[in-house]
Amino acid sequence: MAGLPEAFLAAIQADFPPDFLSLDAGDLATFGRDWTKVHAPSPGAIAFPRTTDEVSRLLRLCSAHAVPVVPSGGRTGLAGGAVAARGELVVSLDRMRHMGPVDMLGGTVRVQAGAVTEAVHQHCAAQGLTWPVDFASKGSSQVGGNIATNAGGVKVIRYGLTRQWVLGLQVVLANGDVLEVGGALEKNNTGLDLRQLFIGSEGTLGIITEATLKLTRLPGHLDVLLFAVADLAGVLALFREARMGGALAPGAGLEPGHGPFTVTAYEFFTERCLDRVKRHRKVRNPLSAPSDYYVLMEVENAHRDALEAWVASLFERELVTDGTLAQHSSQAAELWTLREGISESLSATGLPHKNDVALPISELSGFCAGLDDLFARRYPGWEICLFGHIGDGNLHINVMKPDDLTREQFLARTHEADHDIFALVKAHHGSISAEHGIGLLKKDFLGYTRAPAELALMRAVKRTLDPQGLLNPGKILDA
Amino acid sequence: MAGLPEAFLAAIQADFPPDFLSLDAGDLATFGRDWTKVHAPSPGAIAFPRTTDEVSRLLRLCSAHAVPVVPSGGRTGLAGGAVAARGELVVSLDRMRHMGPVDMLGGTVRVQAGAVTEAVHQHCAAQGLTWPVDFASKGSSQVGGNIATNAGGVKVIRYGLTRQWVLGLQVVLANGDVLEVGGALEKNNTGLDLRQLFIGSEGTLGIITEATLKLTRLPGHLDVLLFAVADLAGVLALFREARMGGALAPGAGLEPGHGPFTVTAYEFFTERCLDRVKRHRKVRNPLSAPSDYYVLMEVENAHRDALEAWVASLFERELVTDGTLAQHSSQAAELWTLREGISESLSATGLPHKNDVALPISELSGFCAGLDDLFARRYPGWEICLFGHIGDGNLHINVMKPDDLTREQFLARTHEADHDIFALVKAHHGSISAEHGIGLLKKDFLGYTRAPAELALMRAVKRTLDPQGLLNPGKILDA
Repeated sequence: MAGLPEAFLAAIQADFPPDFLSLDAGDLATFGRDWTKVHAPSPGAIAFPRTTDEVSRLLRLCSAHAVPVVPSGGRTGLAGGAVAARGELVVSLDRMRHMGPVDMLGGTVRVQAGAVTEAVHQHCAAQGLTWPVDFASKGSSQVGGNIATNAGGVKVIRYGLTRQWVLGLQVVLANGDVLEVGGALEKNNTGLDLRQLFIGSEGTLGIITEATLKLTRLPGHLDVLLFAVADLAGVLALFREARMGGALAPGAGLEPGHGPFTVTAYEFFTERCLDRVKRHRKVRNPLSAPSDYYVLMEVENAHRDALEAWVASLFERELVTDGTLAQHSSQAAELWTLREGISESLSATGLPHKNDVALPISELSGFCAGLDDLFARRYPGWEICLFGHIGDGNLHINVMKPDDLTREQFLARTHEADHDIFALVKAHHGSISAEHGIGLLKKDFLGYTRAPAELALMRAVKRTLDPQGLLNPGKILDA
Repeated sequence: MAGLPEAFLAAIQADFPPDFLSLDAGDLATFGRDWTKVHAPSPGAIAFPRTTDEVSRLLRLCSAHAVPVVPSGGRTGLAGGAVAARGELVVSLDRMRHMGPVDMLGGTVRVQAGAVTEAVHQHCAAQGLTWPVDFASKGSSQVGGNIATNAGGVKVIRYGLTRQWVLGLQVVLANGDVLEVGGALEKNNTGLDLRQLFIGSEGTLGIITEATLKLTRLPGHLDVLLFAVADLAGVLALFREARMGGALAPGAGLEPGHGPFTVTAYEFFTERCLDRVKRHRKVRNPLSAPSDYYVLMEVENAHRDALEAWVASLFERELVTDGTLAQHSSQAAELWTLREGISESLSATGLPHKNDVALPISELSGFCAGLDDLFARRYPGWEICLFGHIGDGNLHINVMKPDDLTREQFLARTHEADHDIFALVKAHHGSISAEHGIGLLKKDFLGYTRAPAELALMRAVKRTLDPQGLLNPGKILDA
């Protein structure tokens, strides 16, 4: 690996503040990768701009010296999108955390890309508003990274993906030009919506430096429920009931469609996941007996009596085998821990290989049956921990390393298994990544989910915006 | 104007059904334009495909013979996007109206692009679901056209634009290739989201032939209210209250953010608009006295007592000067007529010149003051009828032809006035088209709202997807 060009480093020294660039070994290790640990970090240097103008001048310089760039946010990604493994210059947004005043009337806020998700939540909560992009890594993840990866999370069923909550973007292009697209506008039909190119582009088309975020009211009262169901069909049958907001509950006295609540989360996990959480977090199962499948459901603005009547009717109709409704907020938090603790507990108790697939909800049963069959035939004895945002069709498939394989053997076998899994995803009209993105880790598999004509179009857009191929090279696809 | 090439017509005759192409004068006149009347229709022929394969083979033929194409849906557009004024071949989706079964579990439906909006509503309502894209022209507008124009409407404040309700698209490209993007997936983060290129592209990048639509529950109980307020500041102050769902109403006994209702529409209009509706539709003002400004508000799932307490508090706090809450559905429909009848009544009682601009909500006051000042200075005596979806920052500015100007004089003056209006829009960080789109009518003004770098990028994408420039040529921008 060659270092950064001398002339480039000299220009940085001449034109930027003394603390602009870091070659510190600790910084190189920290800022050279995200939460994935597959690739070793090896950046050429880390730049810490404070302003859009600095980012602009930096990219102009990178373009002149053909220096490849890896944009870097909170580095909580799970696809290697922020990994700098080949001597690239990392551009960290860490110092660009300014948040403008909340526009109460318009329900918007303008922030720099390095603003941390949770800080945005706190900034807006005082006004009774929120940016409803929410997930476990909110304490580290940054707005720019959320947008660049079109982040998902546990509230997508209620609020949609990050894409829906971005009104305007300021983006620095590969040549240093600053593009302002959108603005504080809900409606703007004036040709191609350029925001959409950058949202989910994983830093390959430009560096997002500022965003105008769309806000919504803080949610109303939330109720959290945990149910045990016999099988995946039961998970889906219960989902159908929940989606109608309990409107079909006998005795609820409500018209169809006029249900007593709105579903804000519908998550499922298996006993294998819960078992790992119990071991790692020393928590207990709040239900009286283990079950193969669990559903965690959160609902907003429930009429309490109607909700309880609905739950009772689920038991009567044998749609659930057990269940509990949190009676206060600490109980609700305990139930959430069972679900949100899974990822961490899997990593703490073993070596998981992660996949994050999406299926049309109507294909979930068939897909999961096929998955069981596939592993029984090809990878017998492997432990599969299945959980996810099933209300969005999003399954997290975690394969745990068997004791009799080394780490290297396991990674080689899972690469093989991924081809099998993704062939099954394709057969069921799914996506190989629901929310984590492609980055480096899923690049080899992109053809399972995007047709050649799509890939050609993606490459054409990439060439138009980044003709030198300097922005996050090798991520999503090779040029 | 030269006709279509003989060899092209011969190939159509050889390879397509006998009723595929129409040269009938009535069809040419009907299918050669949309609701705009500025350009005279002059298409070369009208094609009526029944299948995606026919569209694909047709576009391959058009590409081979360099025949320009105008895609045509329900032709209810207001920007001239579906006008064929230069001998183009119109491709009507009228025969592609098939609707697949509603997927209850996934909350989706797959339809052909020619399915009429209202037919989709009826198709889904039986299952308690709806595609919440809704506007006055729903009886004619088609799904493909709605998507190609990213249609808006009166429920955007609640549900967002069409863009949010499209999961998958089938698009025929200029060379005849059929692209399938998305699918019945809520989440799919696998590189560039190509759906977004086609949504709002006004037929310039491909012809949408099928779509998988995202559905939602039918709304719960709706209440409709009409208020009189003194001025625009009052319209906005009331909006702030409504947006918080009445949560700040003294005595409602609710926490901030836990309001008793969800706003599904927040519309305003002026006395001048109401006066035209009263003259044309022979309706009366349900309030006791005229007011300069009116607000029509629709709310969902209101707690009736809390809603009435909120309304009472608006009077007490002098946030409104008068108001009424519809007591039953026919009264609600009467209130809606006052707002939805405006467009038709303006056209029936005079010659309106329409603009459809969007402003950040926080800029609305300043913009409207500037507009008043502009017309007082430059166009004294002109009647401006102002109404719109103010909750989305969307103003419909209708300038009525003064009696002392001919139609031609008026159109020339309004073209001049548009430059003044759009300069004001630009100064207030707005958009020259909130929902109608650019088409032919606003093309000359696009530079007021999109920067040169944006226009260059739009042109680059257009050249990539349609190198011959055959798809809806001259719409949005010249190649």
